[in-house]
Amino acid sequence: MTVLLFHSPDDPVELWVAELRRQLPDVEIRTTPDFGDPSEIDYALVWKPPAGLLASLPNLRVTFSIAAGIDHILADPERPTHVPIVRMLDDNLRDMMSEWAILGVLYFHRFMPEYMAEQPKAIWDRRWPIYTPETHVGVLGLGAIGRDVAEKFRVLGFQVHGWSRTPREVAGIICHHGAAGLEAMLPQCRYLVCVLPLTDETRGIIGARTIAALPEDAVVVNLGRGGHVVDEDLLAALDSGHLRGAFLDVFNEEPLPPGHAYWRHPKVVMTPHVAGELVPQSCAKAIARNLNAHMSGAAMEGVLDLERGY
Amino acid sequence: MTVLLFHSPDDPVELWVAELRRQLPDVEIRTTPDFGDPSEIDYALVWKPPAGLLASLPNLRVTFSIAAGIDHILADPERPTHVPIVRMLDDNLRDMMSEWAILGVLYFHRFMPEYMAEQPKAIWDRRWPIYTPETHVGVLGLGAIGRDVAEKFRVLGFQVHGWSRTPREVAGIICHHGAAGLEAMLPQCRYLVCVLPLTDETRGIIGARTIAALPEDAVVVNLGRGGHVVDEDLLAALDSGHLRGAFLDVFNEEPLPPGHAYWRHPKVVMTPHVAGELVPQSCAKAIARNLNAHMSGAAMEGVLDLERGY
Repeated sequence: MTVLLFHSPDDPVELWVAELRRQLPDVEIRTTPDFGDPSEIDYALVWKPPAGLLASLPNLRVTFSIAAGIDHILADPERPTHVPIVRMLDDNLRDMMSEWAILGVLYFHRFMPEYMAEQPKAIWDRRWPIYTPETHVGVLGLGAIGRDVAEKFRVLGFQVHGWSRTPREVAGIICHHGAAGLEAMLPQCRYLVCVLPLTDETRGIIGARTIAALPEDAVVVNLGRGGHVVDEDLLAALDSGHLRGAFLDVFNEEPLPPGHAYWRHPKVVMTPHVAGELVPQSCAKAIARNLNAHMSGAAMEGVLDLERGY
Repeated sequence: MTVLLFHSPDDPVELWVAELRRQLPDVEIRTTPDFGDPSEIDYALVWKPPAGLLASLPNLRVTFSIAAGIDHILADPERPTHVPIVRMLDDNLRDMMSEWAILGVLYFHRFMPEYMAEQPKAIWDRRWPIYTPETHVGVLGLGAIGRDVAEKFRVLGFQVHGWSRTPREVAGIICHHGAAGLEAMLPQCRYLVCVLPLTDETRGIIGARTIAALPEDAVVVNLGRGGHVVDEDLLAALDSGHLRGAFLDVFNEEPLPPGHAYWRHPKVVMTPHVAGELVPQSCAKAIARNLNAHMSGAAMEGVLDLERGY
């Protein structure tokens, strides 16, 4: 019998196993730590596998990531390099990311930091609105998630820019690429939304130079990875007054250490890496599609291209 | 020369006048209080006209509301009943209302009250998400604004219901109407969004009976008029724990009196009637379209139907 090993102890394991069993009735689902004979494992579905776990499975055929990102798997130095890695391309994950990005932008766009500070003081002070049709949002990353984020901002009436490493075209979105494209885009963007994958080329992309290129009172919304942001540069720009705020879901260290400046910074709104949660109801279907495709010799969606790094 | 009288002293009058002049170069724009000979006024564009202002204009041909609602004009007991009233049907107003409704729902949907309370305490506590594709949003009102709100929630992946007094059909939206339709809709709706016009039939619609019909932990989002809500009933349902929260932009008395319970209620988030601001850049175009239509004998959009009350 085909066996799938599930490893994501911080997730609701029972819910995952139940949904996987429903979607894959002919596959045996096992969970860490007590999963029996390692040689019986055909597939693994993992989040941050401990170093050596994947290497201990001699007959592993595919590693499925339980996230859109796969850096948490590449971080394992003993990872078996011949086993393909498949990213989670889950519509619901994508939709959740878009929800969070929209929430972050609208929260600042509609002056919620100001109104919420004034509410307990009973201050009725109507601010003149920012005119959305002349407001530019820049989306870093134009993969499945970035395109969805960009398209939804377009539906809301914003001027939307998208940036990717290599050229892309997305209808209704002003597309930029490469270093020159980033430089051209940034000065226009009142809101900068990052949904990039974390690679050597994107690490630290939201650093002093990028931030300085944004207009005064810009807002940074990061739901890619913490590694995209150079924390000291972001904090310096918030403190100097150049940036109006930051809406952050991901951090260089997670959980964010209790002493970190973000926790109590008056211009930072943060959530504990929940922008794109993976809901078993939806993800088990995506896994089943790819696993069935692989078993029948068909192509899977979202296979990691190691050269691109995502 | 055709003369338009502008009365909305709390708005940025100069910006309005400049945009009206740009859009209506052949019309003279005057402003209250010193607007010269009342008999020279052909058209009025007003917000909360003082009692008697409109009656003092013997040759007034049309009263344009500077809001989607017209209750602020009907409140004038001396209002000349033979003069048609035209509602503001401004795309940007509509888009702003949708933005605010989405912000209100996502704020609760993505657990911002909880995360923002935990942030200053450096608590990293990831909540299991509410699954959007199985989450029902009910929109009270299916006019131009309600339809846009409903459609945008649909784009975000929610199950969307719409309610109107008389039957309506909107693609992709589960439509209900009348008292029986409201009763059928409410128990399904985790979020109830009100964008109704204020009429004798809709006043107090969000009262004890409606609120009791909502499921536990529902959230009320009101950006219609304050008169739609029975404040004591809403507060009772928040305090009893039946409702999770309320996101309010409009109030029975505005500005909301400093002693009102909403200001400091831990489950209420409020803004000072800014959900649908009228931006002169956009509205002057809508006024110009209707005024030009009227001058050339064509039909105007948004003329008040006194029998329906909106």
